[in-house]
Amino acid sequence: MTARSDHSRAQSGRIIISVDAMGGDAGPAVVVAGLAAFAAGNADVGLILHGPEAELARLVERRRELAGRVDFRDAPDVVTMQDKPSHVARNGKGTSMWSALESVREGEAAGAVSCGNTGALMALSTLRLRRLPGVNRPAIAILFPSRAPQRFNVMLDVGADVRADARDLLQFALMGASYARNGLNVQRPRVGLLNVGTEEHKGRAELKEAHGLISQVAEAASFEFVGFVEGSDIPGNRADVIVTDGFTGNVAIKTGEGTAGMIASRLRESFRHSLLSRLASVLAVGSLNRLREHIDPRRVNGGVFLGLNGTVVKSHGSADATGVAAAVKLAYNLAVSGFAERLAARIATTADLVQPGVGAEQAAAGGETTEEQA
Amino acid sequence: MTARSDHSRAQSGRIIISVDAMGGDAGPAVVVAGLAAFAAGNADVGLILHGPEAELARLVERRRELAGRVDFRDAPDVVTMQDKPSHVARNGKGTSMWSALESVREGEAAGAVSCGNTGALMALSTLRLRRLPGVNRPAIAILFPSRAPQRFNVMLDVGADVRADARDLLQFALMGASYARNGLNVQRPRVGLLNVGTEEHKGRAELKEAHGLISQVAEAASFEFVGFVEGSDIPGNRADVIVTDGFTGNVAIKTGEGTAGMIASRLRESFRHSLLSRLASVLAVGSLNRLREHIDPRRVNGGVFLGLNGTVVKSHGSADATGVAAAVKLAYNLAVSGFAERLAARIATTADLVQPGVGAEQAAAGGETTEEQA
Repeated sequence: MTARSDHSRAQSGRIIISVDAMGGDAGPAVVVAGLAAFAAGNADVGLILHGPEAELARLVERRRELAGRVDFRDAPDVVTMQDKPSHVARNGKGTSMWSALESVREGEAAGAVSCGNTGALMALSTLRLRRLPGVNRPAIAILFPSRAPQRFNVMLDVGADVRADARDLLQFALMGASYARNGLNVQRPRVGLLNVGTEEHKGRAELKEAHGLISQVAEAASFEFVGFVEGSDIPGNRADVIVTDGFTGNVAIKTGEGTAGMIASRLRESFRHSLLSRLASVLAVGSLNRLREHIDPRRVNGGVFLGLNGTVVKSHGSADATGVAAAVKLAYNLAVSGFAERLAARIATTADLVQPGVGAEQAAAGGETTEEQA
Repeated sequence: MTARSDHSRAQSGRIIISVDAMGGDAGPAVVVAGLAAFAAGNADVGLILHGPEAELARLVERRRELAGRVDFRDAPDVVTMQDKPSHVARNGKGTSMWSALESVREGEAAGAVSCGNTGALMALSTLRLRRLPGVNRPAIAILFPSRAPQRFNVMLDVGADVRADARDLLQFALMGASYARNGLNVQRPRVGLLNVGTEEHKGRAELKEAHGLISQVAEAASFEFVGFVEGSDIPGNRADVIVTDGFTGNVAIKTGEGTAGMIASRLRESFRHSLLSRLASVLAVGSLNRLREHIDPRRVNGGVFLGLNGTVVKSHGSADATGVAAAVKLAYNLAVSGFAERLAARIATTADLVQPGVGAEQAAAGGETTEEQA
């Protein structure tokens, strides 16, 4: 990966991001609008756009900000939201999603962005980019608005896989800490393991075991392990990185999003209640906008796939231009920081830190699973 | 149970609620203040108060609303938040929590309320009140503020047990629907099974199996099964009852509470930002209070233990007087509606509805677990 990325950067003099123009709910026009918004403020970004070339070229032509900044890769097929990941893995070769990943695999781009089907994107990414050595399950990490000084916490896995054993959770801790360091600039991240209580005797067996494994590597991997945390700590200030399995993480982020949406709608109702409250809402518009900026999920749009040879950012399927711009910005920032290379190095050096015997059974089982899934 | 409750009501002419005065974070004075607040508006409620009698009698004496309404049961010991449930089950006999449950067991009270240690309360409740015939795992159900017409959805399990197999999830669906009917007055509740996506092929194996089992009984049990739902539907309007295991449910409610708290604190920040925004906040105070009323967790304080011979309401450990009053009100309303008897009847009549063969293995495994835990 390092050689490839360097090659790509040298070739163009720009950071090249590969973008799947298709498969999102809003269509390619919105993706192109998002690219234009991001490119306007970032002179050193170049783009490779994947999808039906004639259609995309027409959309790009209208945007002056994109002149001379976009290469096209014609890909006639689209992965839909209904396609099963296993089907796409077998038959996805002509799709824009496959093509977008190919640019990362070939080293022409430093990262890929897609608004498409999450399961299919993870299946194709794992198939084409492959796992980092030592990683059993890749994970999807997101930023959750929080009370922490950096205003966001990292949470992973949020849905790459519904399962995770103790060894997987250990790897999530390593990958999440690395992401917090490079993506949020938190030098010594606090890592917490999500459970139903903070006492050590609580929760499922694999969590107790993961607690032991993570404790062992924390010092060497330059993060602070704060132990078990609860759901209330996801938007809190006890940990910068929340580690959990993909089932629990997926339910938690959607619960958080749903709760924020429900409160926003109740807030609008409250302000429509009377003439006085309507007047108040006019005066409060600045305050409410500031609130929205702090918790707007579009501004931190993008789940990052961790544990692969290359950076893949999954934008929300229903992202608007602001959301697409945020996802491309995330891929760009991670490329600039050399995140993929740093993460690979971190995983390689900490793989040996776990004492043999502790969690060895899981490690063996994990090894088998890797073979099976690769 | 039916006979006992009827006996208790006849004996006193009042609905009697048994209250554990100890074990909450705020102490017995706050519990007594909550009882006074509730009793003031409800002439036909009587109370049995459990804890150190001399101390409690002094607190009750100062409240005119409680004159002639409170019986005491002296219990010198207290279950602390740090006590392990298994320890309490073995050694808890002298505690106020044990004593509070004993009043329900003996039929002197129609329901019990405690602010104490959740795990210990569930362990003691299961031990002393025992499971309803046909129930393997009891569950804790809460009301979650939502966009549904009744403004709250039922969610269970939120932490009675970290595990649940397909058969348990089926029972949660039956119990949750019954609770929505009696507690929220939703005649034909929409029941959803929490998963990471709404497509039928997604999620863990036990969820796919539970999907089949719940589909089978929905019609006969007078609820509508809407299939898989996601975290965003917990505060939404797709289902009135959200069914999940206790691990996922516990993380989800705490994530929702944490998100609401984070937004509230950001909202306060926004309104402190400038002179204009401070002025706006004065005008907006009515709107913001209306918002708070709609989403204030204190107003729906109380997790209900379902699947036992008797009603037990777990109030939040840090509940203030308003919270305690809400928990007692919940126990009172459920007693008035004859909920415990209706639920027992519902479970008894639907136990036979599931086709033999489908989920039979789970049923057998569940049977063994019941023996072991009883």
